Amino acid sequence: MAKVTPWDVEGKIDYDRLIREFGVQKITDPILAQLKKLSGENNFMLDRKIFFAHRDLEFALKEHEKGNLFLYTGCGPSGSIHLGHAMVWKFTKWLQDVLKVDLWFQFTDDEKFLFKKDKSFKEIQELMYDNMLDVIALGFNPKKTHFLIDTKHASIMYPEAIKVAKRLTASSIKSCFGLGDSDNVGMFFYTAMQAVPAFLPSIIKKKKMACLIPHAIDQDPHFRLTRDILPKLGFFKPASIQCSFLPPLTGVEGKMSSSGEAFIALTDTPEQVKKKINKYAFSGGQPTIEEHRKKGGNPDVDIAFQYLRFLFEPDDKKLAKIKKDYKSGKLLTGELKQILIEKINAFLTQHQKKRLEAKKKIDQFIFKPTGHF
Amino acid sequence: MAKVTPWDVEGKIDYDRLIREFGVQKITDPILAQLKKLSGENNFMLDRKIFFAHRDLEFALKEHEKGNLFLYTGCGPSGSIHLGHAMVWKFTKWLQDVLKVDLWFQFTDDEKFLFKKDKSFKEIQELMYDNMLDVIALGFNPKKTHFLIDTKHASIMYPEAIKVAKRLTASSIKSCFGLGDSDNVGMFFYTAMQAVPAFLPSIIKKKKMACLIPHAIDQDPHFRLTRDILPKLGFFKPASIQCSFLPPLTGVEGKMSSSGEAFIALTDTPEQVKKKINKYAFSGGQPTIEEHRKKGGNPDVDIAFQYLRFLFEPDDKKLAKIKKDYKSGKLLTGELKQILIEKINAFLTQHQKKRLEAKKKIDQFIFKPTGHF
Repeated sequence: MAKVTPWDVEGKIDYDRLIREFGVQKITDPILAQLKKLSGENNFMLDRKIFFAHRDLEFALKEHEKGNLFLYTGCGPSGSIHLGHAMVWKFTKWLQDVLKVDLWFQFTDDEKFLFKKDKSFKEIQELMYDNMLDVIALGFNPKKTHFLIDTKHASIMYPEAIKVAKRLTASSIKSCFGLGDSDNVGMFFYTAMQAVPAFLPSIIKKKKMACLIPHAIDQDPHFRLTRDILPKLGFFKPASIQCSFLPPLTGVEGKMSSSGEAFIALTDTPEQVKKKINKYAFSGGQPTIEEHRKKGGNPDVDIAFQYLRFLFEPDDKKLAKIKKDYKSGKLLTGELKQILIEKINAFLTQHQKKRLEAKKKIDQFIFKPTGHF
Repeated sequence: MAKVTPWDVEGKIDYDRLIREFGVQKITDPILAQLKKLSGENNFMLDRKIFFAHRDLEFALKEHEKGNLFLYTGCGPSGSIHLGHAMVWKFTKWLQDVLKVDLWFQFTDDEKFLFKKDKSFKEIQELMYDNMLDVIALGFNPKKTHFLIDTKHASIMYPEAIKVAKRLTASSIKSCFGLGDSDNVGMFFYTAMQAVPAFLPSIIKKKKMACLIPHAIDQDPHFRLTRDILPKLGFFKPASIQCSFLPPLTGVEGKMSSSGEAFIALTDTPEQVKKKINKYAFSGGQPTIEEHRKKGGNPDVDIAFQYLRFLFEPDDKKLAKIKKDYKSGKLLTGELKQILIEKINAFLTQHQKKRLEAKKKIDQFIFKPTGHF
């Protein structure tokens, strides 16, 4: 059976079951139509049901019409930024561009420090500033994007977090996240900090605003607790738009993670990408060329095909042709991998160029509160 | 049996038993002599064993000789400042004057908000700024006294608190403070914030300094945990100098608290003081004047006498005479109370005058970190 928590995703995921268990909603055609009206053309991640579930998305879009919406997403700085992060953030950027709203981007350095036994505070800080370069390179609008760093912005975040914490018992944290008495007290407290960006903009703007959080579905438990508590503090429940997991290179189970080698980092060189895809990317093809030509491959389990579907081939017609050719045996595994390698390297070459420029932009992105010492 | 926790002190306290149970040391004559060498004349609270216990006080004094010591005390803003607070802080001021060291004064607004179900964040903030006036009026040196406010200074305190929290399990908090799973996660986390002023000055001064904490013995559990953890973070264990409890007006059991009416607030008027002492102060005298003249009173349980001993009659000879006269029946309860009322009102008149001046001094006392936004 699959395991899905904010810190662990393992096994074959049954998304319909997750929808039932988590109590989220499927994104329906009327919602897709509403988004299309705003965007002109929907992001392929919506059409392909990669972003497939939500909470209160209709409500968020209604508030958006009144100019009352902001976006919130985040990054836990614990390693290299990989394609799994890029997927959520590229979609978030699309949403920001379409909705023309502020995005609050939280860096949960406290979380990663508290949950990773082997990482020092200094290491997490270094990773965080490095991760920021990737976020910035993805092209967010600096005028509408505000970085919140849990530790650095604690003077505005901690006073709000304790208001959440006062309504959050140790037992609800235990049952929601499976923590126990041998876990550290920072892990117990952390969810209160994660809740803050869902209502801080309402305090700053001095009006009750709706919050929409694009995230992978494993983060839902955090926001389930947040949704229980925020109305008691006088704020709206945050809405969310949730995606499935970009799988690791090794196969369609679980999610990409920066432990081990089975991921593509946004800092990988063209050679690394080529090597990793050729070495690790699970193939849905047949053992021999002859057999492949005869029986064809299985795109549903083929990682190269899946990455094209998730991220690198936005054109539905082109994707359909690749699928057909692969299934028929016309397209070989090596050829399919080559298509993906070229797509990834084209993206990373551009990305890494922007990444070099990003260092001098960090300061523009970091939120500057007023009236605090 | 007496109950002594950081949030509850009830019953008749056996201080020798507390010393054994808490594992603290008695303040010995050689330590008193060492302090006398520094001060010229020891504070009567030391000679009278009101400050009676310590942890690592010799070590702290040794570090002081090397210019390596600071003081740390605090205030949990939950109600009026009363004589119980004044006792600890007057002694702290004496120590600051004698040792000529910096004092870090923590305002634990987070603690009081998290632990007091019925208090709003705003109420706690108002109480805190009001409490600051009393602290300032007690005469601390503004150049050497730094107010740290847990919420307002969270940008420098929270990043340090999570380093403590990472080494503090939920189970150690439960066993130390008797918290349970139905308590809120802020209560679990809070001890990590309380630990920070014990090492923050070492970070600010960029050298490993010793910390001495004057406090009432009920706060010892907080610092016991702090002492376990700080060496693992590269700091000294904080030393402490601990006092017994100023009793409530109603009798020598428990400690003065600002709930109910059985306390003297530093903002009480002369009339209120007179009324409270006459109405509530438990008397060690006899039911009738005739009987009192014959049998005499018991100063050990007489609150008016005890307050003179704890705070208001520093002159040992005068105190001894009062004791003798009260025991012999020469001094009546009403007369003894009158002595105390006059002493308290003389102190409060002066205090309240300084309190009016204090408002414009708050800013001088609040610590101003650099390099944070």
